[in-house]
Amino acid sequence: MKQVRAVRTRRLIVQAAADEFDRHGYAGTPLICVTKAAGISMGALTFHFPTKPDLADAVQASGTGLTREVVARVGGLSVPPVSRARALVLSIARLLSECTAVRAAARLSRERSTAGVWADAWLACLTELLRSAHEEGRLRSQVAPEAFAESVQFLITGIEEYTRCAGPGADADPAAVRRVARAWDLLLYGASRPAP
Amino acid sequence: MKQVRAVRTRRLIVQAAADEFDRHGYAGTPLICVTKAAGISMGALTFHFPTKPDLADAVQASGTGLTREVVARVGGLSVPPVSRARALVLSIARLLSECTAVRAAARLSRERSTAGVWADAWLACLTELLRSAHEEGRLRSQVAPEAFAESVQFLITGIEEYTRCAGPGADADPAAVRRVARAWDLLLYGASRPAP
Repeated sequence: MKQVRAVRTRRLIVQAAADEFDRHGYAGTPLICVTKAAGISMGALTFHFPTKPDLADAVQASGTGLTREVVARVGGLSVPPVSRARALVLSIARLLSECTAVRAAARLSRERSTAGVWADAWLACLTELLRSAHEEGRLRSQVAPEAFAESVQFLITGIEEYTRCAGPGADADPAAVRRVARAWDLLLYGASRPAP
Repeated sequence: MKQVRAVRTRRLIVQAAADEFDRHGYAGTPLICVTKAAGISMGALTFHFPTKPDLADAVQASGTGLTREVVARVGGLSVPPVSRARALVLSIARLLSECTAVRAAARLSRERSTAGVWADAWLACLTELLRSAHEEGRLRSQVAPEAFAESVQFLITGIEEYTRCAGPGADADPAAVRRVARAWDLLLYGASRPAP
């Protein structure tokens, strides 16, 4: 019973911290703000997460874990690589628009140079899919899959900031995904070999 | 003489504040850090900028002013709209990679919902150029210039974060501009009408 309560408190803290880190960044989030948002004492917070880096690590692990789940799900789809790549990019955009832990993970991994990079959780898979599409002759030969993937990474960072600014309540708004779809389609059209 | 000194001090403060806001964001930058970075007293800081919003306004005005200068310069080039659009996008990328005031203005305008949006300084011009390119038949008819411009805006946000992470010393590194050029070329190729 005590253990269940501890797990629940940890989850509550990580969610509150994700909201704060997402909105205000690592430097802009004092632990006192997290305790207020979670409705707990500083003692309870430091019992579970002795330091701010510990707490940020937990938020990043949570957001990165959710991202890996989506990557695994998309990776298992039985569609051509280029369709899987599109599904992956739109799924990442949806995650960013719906989940502050994922947005916080993306932001924290940029702001904390010591931490693992959130993009690693999906970028390798995307690059691999684009390589397969390239090998299948789906892309123009002069388009390097790595360069294409890098352009998508910029796009995803843009969407991350867009959904952050859209703020709470934007969760139900599919605008972010629609916008990414439009940009992806332009990029893909630009990278594709013309139909014979 | 006293006036010259005051102007110089204001400039020194704005530059130090730009560096701090760029790296740590609005919430993550206490005024005390700006005084340390500028090597001045808190009294001197608040004499010139009574509040944190005043200081952030000055940084945004500085970064946005520099951006407007570049937009005016590119707008005057005697090349077709699509070439001017490319020059504009690469110039904005170069500005972001070289100038912390511009990066800070971009970041602050997102983080402070009350403030003018930095992107307004260049996005209207880009959209106008893409509209002209569309009217000239340079773009595929189904590509809306506004949607194209929005994709570029995401790309620019991505580059802003990329150059911020690249950190000091990256100024001389033209990688940001090269990366934007590659992504722009993909987008443009995707948006272009095939040669007859």
